[in-house]
Amino acid sequence: MTGWLDALERLAASRAKAGLTRQLRPRPADDFVVDLAGNDYLGLSAHPAVVAAAADALAAYGLGATGSRLVRGSTDAHAALESALADFLGFPAALVFSSGYLANLAAVRAATAVCDLIVSDAYNHASLIDGCRISGQRTVVAPHNDPAAVAAILDAHPGRTAVVVTESVFSVDGDLASLASLHEVTSSRGALLLIDDAHALGLLGPAGAGGVAAAGLAGRPDVIVTATLSKALGGAGGVVAAPAPFIHHLIDTGRTFIYDTALPPAVVAGVHEALRLTTRADDRRATLAARAARTVARLTEAGLEVDPPAAAVLSVPAPGPEPAVTWAADCRDRGVAVGCFRPPSTPDGSSRLRLTLNAGVPDQAFARALDVIVECAP
Amino acid sequence: MTGWLDALERLAASRAKAGLTRQLRPRPADDFVVDLAGNDYLGLSAHPAVVAAAADALAAYGLGATGSRLVRGSTDAHAALESALADFLGFPAALVFSSGYLANLAAVRAATAVCDLIVSDAYNHASLIDGCRISGQRTVVAPHNDPAAVAAILDAHPGRTAVVVTESVFSVDGDLASLASLHEVTSSRGALLLIDDAHALGLLGPAGAGGVAAAGLAGRPDVIVTATLSKALGGAGGVVAAPAPFIHHLIDTGRTFIYDTALPPAVVAGVHEALRLTTRADDRRATLAARAARTVARLTEAGLEVDPPAAAVLSVPAPGPEPAVTWAADCRDRGVAVGCFRPPSTPDGSSRLRLTLNAGVPDQAFARALDVIVECAP
Repeated sequence: MTGWLDALERLAASRAKAGLTRQLRPRPADDFVVDLAGNDYLGLSAHPAVVAAAADALAAYGLGATGSRLVRGSTDAHAALESALADFLGFPAALVFSSGYLANLAAVRAATAVCDLIVSDAYNHASLIDGCRISGQRTVVAPHNDPAAVAAILDAHPGRTAVVVTESVFSVDGDLASLASLHEVTSSRGALLLIDDAHALGLLGPAGAGGVAAAGLAGRPDVIVTATLSKALGGAGGVVAAPAPFIHHLIDTGRTFIYDTALPPAVVAGVHEALRLTTRADDRRATLAARAARTVARLTEAGLEVDPPAAAVLSVPAPGPEPAVTWAADCRDRGVAVGCFRPPSTPDGSSRLRLTLNAGVPDQAFARALDVIVECAP
Repeated sequence: MTGWLDALERLAASRAKAGLTRQLRPRPADDFVVDLAGNDYLGLSAHPAVVAAAADALAAYGLGATGSRLVRGSTDAHAALESALADFLGFPAALVFSSGYLANLAAVRAATAVCDLIVSDAYNHASLIDGCRISGQRTVVAPHNDPAAVAAILDAHPGRTAVVVTESVFSVDGDLASLASLHEVTSSRGALLLIDDAHALGLLGPAGAGGVAAAGLAGRPDVIVTATLSKALGGAGGVVAAPAPFIHHLIDTGRTFIYDTALPPAVVAGVHEALRLTTRADDRRATLAARAARTVARLTEAGLEVDPPAAAVLSVPAPGPEPAVTWAADCRDRGVAVGCFRPPSTPDGSSRLRLTLNAGVPDQAFARALDVIVECAP
């Protein structure tokens, strides 16, 4: 039975022909590259206070959580972080997962315990799409960021209870969903609104409380929020924040919570410290806003197409997958890491660079990075 | 729109009535409970060398991986661990995921790129079941650990290429799959065999290389292995080990790899150190074997039903979900943590205590724990 390996090789050859092969590029610990590719938006992942908090918890608890929290006990560190996240996001309760992907799978599936229709934005993240899929519930894909289209879909399904699933700041293009309009559509029709706030948490809203808070939707009884702990909060893991009965439902039935080893206590403690810093990081948020404006000005001046970002994700179209790869590789060779998004990572089939701003990058390095991106453009 | 909250409350009431409510029990850092509930089989999660390796990487890399490895770069720590895991498990290549759940979702789905039938053991873990579900591929559930039944299912689908999915040591009952027989069945019929080695890695096989190695199946070109890094290896995350084309396929197409923030470098480095210790841990494996025999003798003598474990998971039947909960709670009140498994966590609808042995527990504490379990029995 080696025919399957031949079949895999043929699939690999097709991907190579289409320019869709992916390479794991090495990154040493002393990598001096300027990071405009990651999601460490506030530059907190290596903040001394974050590292110190993680190191303390590592010494206190050991490395792993040693099991599911339901079987092995729920550490004080997890409970404290969940309480702080619920307060921060403005919801009654929150539950931490070992990754944002697993949080989204659980949240979408749990919503279908009381909803028999999912309306999912066309540009949603893979984890939300997989959440729809794994729920087995009827799913209608809505045109990207189009509340009127969502209204039409809901109106076309009068007998159903729906959950509308969207991101706040979209991961690929960095645009902001029309959350207030969308909530008017859902609340007037008895639908739930589930919002993935991964790319807005720490960046938008009062004290960085996120895109949901910025839209005035924090704590609404018909809103569910998910987010990652691996982006502005500099660590790993995910969170769901919602009314308490939804969180209880996740604890009792959420397969990716129940049957998964908990996030390591050291990561939990480091993220908690990053959360404290985030609430006081208006200076870092101001740096990001200034850099966003500067990036748009510099790239536009150079004839590149780019929209002002809602938070810290910028999308710059490339002529195709191979030029995008070359562009990103040339930048990398000159010490600047940028994201390169190609199908199937892009919802519209086009390729682009994705630039993610990082307040931890020194000013001079940031200026040089913009020069490099422009000079390497196809 | 608060009707959904009422609906959730009604679902919660049904679960409460059926004795299926779950509680998150607090665990302080200085918890002095004897752990017979977690999966830290070799007692390595708090080993000084593991903690030191994680602390060094924390200082070197910061807390988070700051993005997907494909976008943000693949750290030296990840590459070194993957190389070591491939060698340890005896396969050409390995890929680390941020959780074992995500590794299983990816592995099962990727197998269906070249297989159009899944045969899944009835007692498989939730993550494998969800992998079948998310793949969208036709799935037949086979009677538990029954190679002849698998053969019959394969023979009943002559036109299809199948992947047979099983655990090595099953997570709930701790019994060992008949891997050699199962491989005879699959290899003679041109099917793949995917084995989740989570509860055997570090415990069975030469130098703890796992249940697949123990069955002589390491490196077979028609075998795929998955495992967790959160059990005997004391950390967090998951791994897939397989022929190289399968790993390349995962890198190019595995959604839970591509669209997920990488496992934190500190966790990766700690797990790598735990792996080094595991290969030299024959003393700890001997301790576990002696404790398994002692547990079976003590519980049998007390009139409790228990089978000798294949590795370090023992299942002790309880008269129902509520007596199981009370039994576990009484043990916990007397300082002994044991697992309590009820539907829907149990594949056969029955409830039991799950005892997981831990070589890091001192001898005297272990002896006392056995007394407590017997004295609290319903």
